[in-house]
Amino acid sequence: MATRDFDELSITSAVIERFSDVPDPRLKTLLVSLVRHVHDFVREVELTEAEWFAAIDFLTRTGQACSDTRQEFILLSDTLGVSMLVDAINHRQPVGVTETTVLGPFYVANPPVQPNGADIATGNEGPPLYVAGTVTAPDGKPLAGATVDVWHSDEDGLYDVQKPGAKAQLRARFTTDAQGRFAFWTIVPCFYPVPHDGPVGAMLKASRRHPYRPAHLHFMIAHPGFETLVTHLFMEGDPYLDSDAVFGVKQSLIVRLTEESGPAPGRQVEGTWHSLDHRFGLKPAASVP
Amino acid sequence: MATRDFDELSITSAVIERFSDVPDPRLKTLLVSLVRHVHDFVREVELTEAEWFAAIDFLTRTGQACSDTRQEFILLSDTLGVSMLVDAINHRQPVGVTETTVLGPFYVANPPVQPNGADIATGNEGPPLYVAGTVTAPDGKPLAGATVDVWHSDEDGLYDVQKPGAKAQLRARFTTDAQGRFAFWTIVPCFYPVPHDGPVGAMLKASRRHPYRPAHLHFMIAHPGFETLVTHLFMEGDPYLDSDAVFGVKQSLIVRLTEESGPAPGRQVEGTWHSLDHRFGLKPAASVP
Repeated sequence: MATRDFDELSITSAVIERFSDVPDPRLKTLLVSLVRHVHDFVREVELTEAEWFAAIDFLTRTGQACSDTRQEFILLSDTLGVSMLVDAINHRQPVGVTETTVLGPFYVANPPVQPNGADIATGNEGPPLYVAGTVTAPDGKPLAGATVDVWHSDEDGLYDVQKPGAKAQLRARFTTDAQGRFAFWTIVPCFYPVPHDGPVGAMLKASRRHPYRPAHLHFMIAHPGFETLVTHLFMEGDPYLDSDAVFGVKQSLIVRLTEESGPAPGRQVEGTWHSLDHRFGLKPAASVP
Repeated sequence: MATRDFDELSITSAVIERFSDVPDPRLKTLLVSLVRHVHDFVREVELTEAEWFAAIDFLTRTGQACSDTRQEFILLSDTLGVSMLVDAINHRQPVGVTETTVLGPFYVANPPVQPNGADIATGNEGPPLYVAGTVTAPDGKPLAGATVDVWHSDEDGLYDVQKPGAKAQLRARFTTDAQGRFAFWTIVPCFYPVPHDGPVGAMLKASRRHPYRPAHLHFMIAHPGFETLVTHLFMEGDPYLDSDAVFGVKQSLIVRLTEESGPAPGRQVEGTWHSLDHRFGLKPAASVP
């Protein structure tokens, strides 16, 4: 094994050799594979020094664009399809279990707890939407006491955390009742662009890619003894279902909204309103305690 | 081409398809190759969601550790051998041309101009070292008026820019005379650790890798009509020549210091001093103006 004077091929074995004493075998596997693939990439494209420096600069600006309310590296992972690939590998779902999709950068831990039937729109304009759901095991058995975190963007495509000083809006935690049911009022979501004023936006623009995601509601659903489900519901007919900027659309997650004109559950609505009702199947944890 | 419901393989072709309209053909090549290699890595190791999140967190902290005086992503590139691989690909040197090595994160553009023979140690403790050099074309013809930027670390392994409020020290720009010669006084450099209190240091520690670089002087030498040379001189006998944390050592860049006891050029020295004299061969630019 050479220890100096590395050439274009021997540098890779030298770096891998340097990782021969990593105590954690999984970390060793990850580092060695990473080095091999990154070096293969550099050799394949014969990366120039100017391109290397542009990459360093891009990664630096991506890290520095991250804040408490923005995660530009998740956005990069999302727009390069890496997040959905990780999702596909980790959620080979059995029958009866809801498919998963990206977490996205706007989840906030411990959102405000709301009673079933609450309105989470809190002043945001838009067509009223009544969302009802049932959380079940794969066999359809209802799960009572499941925690259902919900979040989505407003009519301008912004999440509450993107608005300076805004309180929690279009974001809440519900708990399923004895029948595994939860429900809330909100507004019909609209398609919107991912944040595209940063390094990732520049990458999309240089690639002639649009930054839009089809309209969706985010869900994170947890129950003891089951894997936590992270998913969306998309709206049938959205113009971006086939070109989601983050590759997150799955057919089974597309729902059709029903237009209603009768009495609305728990509130007075002028004119029509929309509703959806969806079953979320959770996957039993690998080892149930 | 599927546009939704991607599986572990079809997600990669979907992302590549999304880059089919990149106007810049080189950018398209880079992005498509990058996506393929990153996806191959994720599939090969079956990256878990916790590992994906740890990677996002690592990259974010690496970006946020960067400042005007620290470049943690260059350090990551260096410690994974990527910088030296890029160097090897871009500097297949002909005979008579000095080999190149990493720039490192501590270069400062436009260092203070000094006359030949100046002492750049400015108060730093250490054995006196007289460095002389000749800058030439590959055939040995001297190059007059070449710009020679020099920088190195102090006896504690720190560069001036790492010390709050410090002025330029152990850093200067010289110009070669009619014989292509330059010279300066400094102190003998010592091996030192790369900054290892950040994300990259944690990676090295988890890998049981030491953070040391063998002692070296940095040079960046420029002359019209030639490629700018970025290189080091290493010191023979250094204990880290075979395990440089950034894989930068080349045999042709190792010099032996001569111990001297006679009169020192241009100054009074108590006791012995050291000297080196090295020829730097520049490579003609691909298209000389």
